[in-house]
Amino acid sequence: MAEQPSSAVEARGGFFLSFEGMDGAGKGTQIDLLVELLSALGLHPVVNREPGGTLIGQQIRTILLDAANSHLRPTAELLLYFASRAQAVDEVILPALGRGELVITDRFTDSTLVYQGMARGLGTQVVEHLDAISCRGLVPDLTILLDIDPATSLARTSARNAATASTETRLDEESREFHTRVREGYLALATANPHRVVVVDGSPGPREIANAIFEVVLPRLLLGPMAPLEANP
Amino acid sequence: MAEQPSSAVEARGGFFLSFEGMDGAGKGTQIDLLVELLSALGLHPVVNREPGGTLIGQQIRTILLDAANSHLRPTAELLLYFASRAQAVDEVILPALGRGELVITDRFTDSTLVYQGMARGLGTQVVEHLDAISCRGLVPDLTILLDIDPATSLARTSARNAATASTETRLDEESREFHTRVREGYLALATANPHRVVVVDGSPGPREIANAIFEVVLPRLLLGPMAPLEANP
Repeated sequence: MAEQPSSAVEARGGFFLSFEGMDGAGKGTQIDLLVELLSALGLHPVVNREPGGTLIGQQIRTILLDAANSHLRPTAELLLYFASRAQAVDEVILPALGRGELVITDRFTDSTLVYQGMARGLGTQVVEHLDAISCRGLVPDLTILLDIDPATSLARTSARNAATASTETRLDEESREFHTRVREGYLALATANPHRVVVVDGSPGPREIANAIFEVVLPRLLLGPMAPLEANP
Repeated sequence: MAEQPSSAVEARGGFFLSFEGMDGAGKGTQIDLLVELLSALGLHPVVNREPGGTLIGQQIRTILLDAANSHLRPTAELLLYFASRAQAVDEVILPALGRGELVITDRFTDSTLVYQGMARGLGTQVVEHLDAISCRGLVPDLTILLDIDPATSLARTSARNAATASTETRLDEESREFHTRVREGYLALATANPHRVVVVDGSPGPREIANAIFEVVLPRLLLGPMAPLEANP
């Protein structure tokens, strides 16, 4: 068993897995737990975080999340997210997939579609144009959407900001209404892409969620990205 | 005379003037001299510099020009230039034009067309797509192209970097061949846009160049952006 997933991934020229969901949904924790479980099987994924998965991306992330930059305009914000993404695609993601590796990314274009395109009202078409320029057709083979309700998202991110005295609070100051639009956008995306996006309930404890994710991910790694995924129930 | 240019600008809903040319062509000096001459006529232009004309733009400029960021990939670089531009358009340029003011910008989309689209080979189409998203149809009413030969550009920028011990040396390390492609790109752009782009010889002394520019700019300000410009000889 230990060798099987690894060789299946390599035979298919890599596997690209994205995690999506609202702030506080537990994406970071679940990626850590999945990496731990996969490592036990001999798989060592490359992990990317957006924005900020590269040294260039970290500099862009600082601009995006600094509370002092509240005058950042929506179009400029959108272009900064895609600049970070384009750098990650060229520097990290495409080279790793080219070596046949498994790449896990914490957010990808779905985040931009939902946050900027839908919730901020810039429209999905402009996001799709920028995606075509930045990612050149690269779409995740599988997307795990960690679903929590807006109140949980706000409570968890407030607690995190209080604990770390972080200056990365700009997004967390958004209204509850905005969070509701984000959740609706994500669920609409899952409905529109039932073969790629799997909704996982983010409300139970971390280990329980990790098991649910592992049960979704492992068969896809064994069967490869082209295997049809059962539509969301 | 002192009141005439001001009211002409206001009647036409602002005037958007861009300066283009290679590093070392003297854009900064010439913009300062033009502002000085126009101030004597009672006109007080809003000046924008790209990248970096806003607080957000300055942060983006740091990423773009830091020699430590030599691993910045071409697509990410392109998106960063347009992020800075979109912020300037929304925060500075469109509001000022809306108030009927004269806006002078040190570089605009022509720079990106020439440097990234032509000289770096990304193609002009992707630059035009990003321009449509970032600038939403905003094109300079008049563009002054300060033309110098590549050897002069390299010599002047090397001297400047040596004098300031600047870390903003990434672009200046480009080869002479690249500078030649930039110059050819600019001249092709002037040929393709004879009614908007005026080529001014950047080799004489600063005051002589300033007079040549003033002779081009003043009639356009008096007659407004819609007046047909004599094609380049």
